[in-house]
Amino acid sequence: MDQIGLMRQLSLKTETKIVMVVLDGLGGLPDPITNKTELETANIPNLNALAAKSICGLSNPVLPGITPGSGPGHLALFGYDPLQYVIGRGVLEALGIDFDLRPGDVASRGNLCTLDTQGIITDRRAGRISTDKSRVIASQLNGLEIDGVQVIVEAVKDHRIVVVFRGEGLSDAVSDSDPQRVGLAPQPVTAINGSSNRMAQIANRFIAHASKVLTNHHPANGLLLRGFSRKPDFPSFKEVYNLDACAIAGYPMYRGLAKVVGMSVVKTGTTLTEEIQSLRDNFNSYDFFFFHVKGTDAAGEDGDFSRKVSVLENFDQFLPAIIELKPDVLIVTGDHSTPAILGGHGWQSVPVLVQGKYCRPDSVSVFSENACVGGGLGNIPACHLMPVAMANALKLEKFGA
Amino acid sequence: MDQIGLMRQLSLKTETKIVMVVLDGLGGLPDPITNKTELETANIPNLNALAAKSICGLSNPVLPGITPGSGPGHLALFGYDPLQYVIGRGVLEALGIDFDLRPGDVASRGNLCTLDTQGIITDRRAGRISTDKSRVIASQLNGLEIDGVQVIVEAVKDHRIVVVFRGEGLSDAVSDSDPQRVGLAPQPVTAINGSSNRMAQIANRFIAHASKVLTNHHPANGLLLRGFSRKPDFPSFKEVYNLDACAIAGYPMYRGLAKVVGMSVVKTGTTLTEEIQSLRDNFNSYDFFFFHVKGTDAAGEDGDFSRKVSVLENFDQFLPAIIELKPDVLIVTGDHSTPAILGGHGWQSVPVLVQGKYCRPDSVSVFSENACVGGGLGNIPACHLMPVAMANALKLEKFGA
Repeated sequence: MDQIGLMRQLSLKTETKIVMVVLDGLGGLPDPITNKTELETANIPNLNALAAKSICGLSNPVLPGITPGSGPGHLALFGYDPLQYVIGRGVLEALGIDFDLRPGDVASRGNLCTLDTQGIITDRRAGRISTDKSRVIASQLNGLEIDGVQVIVEAVKDHRIVVVFRGEGLSDAVSDSDPQRVGLAPQPVTAINGSSNRMAQIANRFIAHASKVLTNHHPANGLLLRGFSRKPDFPSFKEVYNLDACAIAGYPMYRGLAKVVGMSVVKTGTTLTEEIQSLRDNFNSYDFFFFHVKGTDAAGEDGDFSRKVSVLENFDQFLPAIIELKPDVLIVTGDHSTPAILGGHGWQSVPVLVQGKYCRPDSVSVFSENACVGGGLGNIPACHLMPVAMANALKLEKFGA
Repeated sequence: MDQIGLMRQLSLKTETKIVMVVLDGLGGLPDPITNKTELETANIPNLNALAAKSICGLSNPVLPGITPGSGPGHLALFGYDPLQYVIGRGVLEALGIDFDLRPGDVASRGNLCTLDTQGIITDRRAGRISTDKSRVIASQLNGLEIDGVQVIVEAVKDHRIVVVFRGEGLSDAVSDSDPQRVGLAPQPVTAINGSSNRMAQIANRFIAHASKVLTNHHPANGLLLRGFSRKPDFPSFKEVYNLDACAIAGYPMYRGLAKVVGMSVVKTGTTLTEEIQSLRDNFNSYDFFFFHVKGTDAAGEDGDFSRKVSVLENFDQFLPAIIELKPDVLIVTGDHSTPAILGGHGWQSVPVLVQGKYCRPDSVSVFSENACVGGGLGNIPACHLMPVAMANALKLEKFGA
């Protein structure tokens, strides 16, 4: 039995409430001059005080050494092994722009690209054209109907677009047209099994149509599609944990990921003030809250050490407002590391604290990467955190008599 | 997807270089008088200074409590789960004497043994006869041809020999003749499936022939065969990690294990001076280096605590020569513990350090079993070290968007 099966079997409905705060990209690396990480640099008295009352540790989202994207990072925090529960690239892109994927839709990630006169790819990103230009092109490509299948095209960012096929009898078992290399021609989309011939044909007809539309849009005169995928049919938080879960997240990708596991996504904004207000407004109506903070990751991605420090300090000021609500279990962690000196997602383990009446606090009294090394949770896979949260909320039955 | 599949998917070819130093049998146990392990006793300033700049931890080669042989111990370090990637005993013996196993060959481990007049085994090791005597016997058994199959026999050490069957249509799906107990007769080799009848017949004919030859060699008047196996067809370092890997190892077993995963095995000697020279000579030509130090294990196996301490101190003097080459990632660990007071391989976790620009050093400033308990890597399966090394060398793409 896998962990999801175990949770299905053991989960109890109770009155207790769990708040899981995800400081996106929380883990960091030391500044070469000060030798302190972002967390170690930040003035975070409230987080430190909470750590002192918590059981702390480090978590690995996928496996040691593996740098996760946002999808796998969050699925792990939600208790779904990201090597087993995989979300396709097309679907992830669609989630990232809050696209309302319906059952049966097949989403693909598109790159606007540059082709030479022979049709060979010379730039897979069309010189990273602006989002504004992509929007114009997407609107020209949007709305085609092929053999009863509606093709919906939306810009994402720069050269990135999403192409969603909506209609009867589609399949995601088709190959990419994107060869992921320059110097080659785009590949025809081919069926991977017998039931995906129609999908491959429609995709190829769309690409042929797009080629004509794009002729005049050099450097964006070609289109590459990859990651054809459907919205996954994962068991929901309700089925697995018996939880009525609420997602408070200001950005589309995280709202989308929460929807994938069946959370209710409530109205909020992108500021902590708005998110805290949403938490307050909904606190009586749910028993699990996924509370997402984007700023830490965004600062890390930008390589902005001091902005990441500021975001952490700002969150620290809002932490008492969460504690005041008296959740039975409060977790603070991240979905992965985004060290500013790396300027992107990293593989480094992520600090975590779990506070609750029965957590058995350890000797960690500072919330930082190095302090958490000595925490009572040890260094564990991130997908074990949900069972730990459930247990601390007394929401799990004994396993075996 | 297993870890090997994940590495295949994520590995990038880059300019960075990884050096993995394997101090064979590194982990130890405290001397009952001083209460210090071999590592804790040794004067190793360079290893300690390196540990202070590294992320440290402990690794378990197979599972907690499991004592690995050299095969599983090294496969784990190479990132191949040793419970999934199994090398047969016969093949391991052949690798240990640098035997050039070819595709199709079936190798078996032989024990020269003592039989009584009824043909019952009274000593499975023939009084541990000398290697010299085994060599004489092996040469008498060597060179037989049975039904087109060549039988090659070579001495290993003491009573141990290797018997390799070379010809068409062989199979390793046959049972052992060695009952692994005294008081029983050797068992006939039997086919485990329909396609291994011929192999069983040939093995039995060889054993019958050997019995005649051995009659006059009491106490080595019998032969027991076990572990019939072929050289495994594991995916190579190149396929899995996109690495051009170089093995620097003075002893045949480790050269053989490196070949099993497709490393280039370069010329070297058994001294650290020679091994360091080989590392220097080849440093520009490869991007991964497996650097094997045998002395620690040999001393541990001999129960020689102070010699193991000396080997560690000697290695410590050579460490700066490795650091001078400026590998992007430097790992120092062992394939298992060989505590001198145990006088053999042990199951105890093995200290490990990983140094690189993005490793996030922890508070460990001494390289020892106990200090590494507090390391940032935690206590992890040894097969996770390769992904950690690859990540630190920036050789892995992000998993999922």
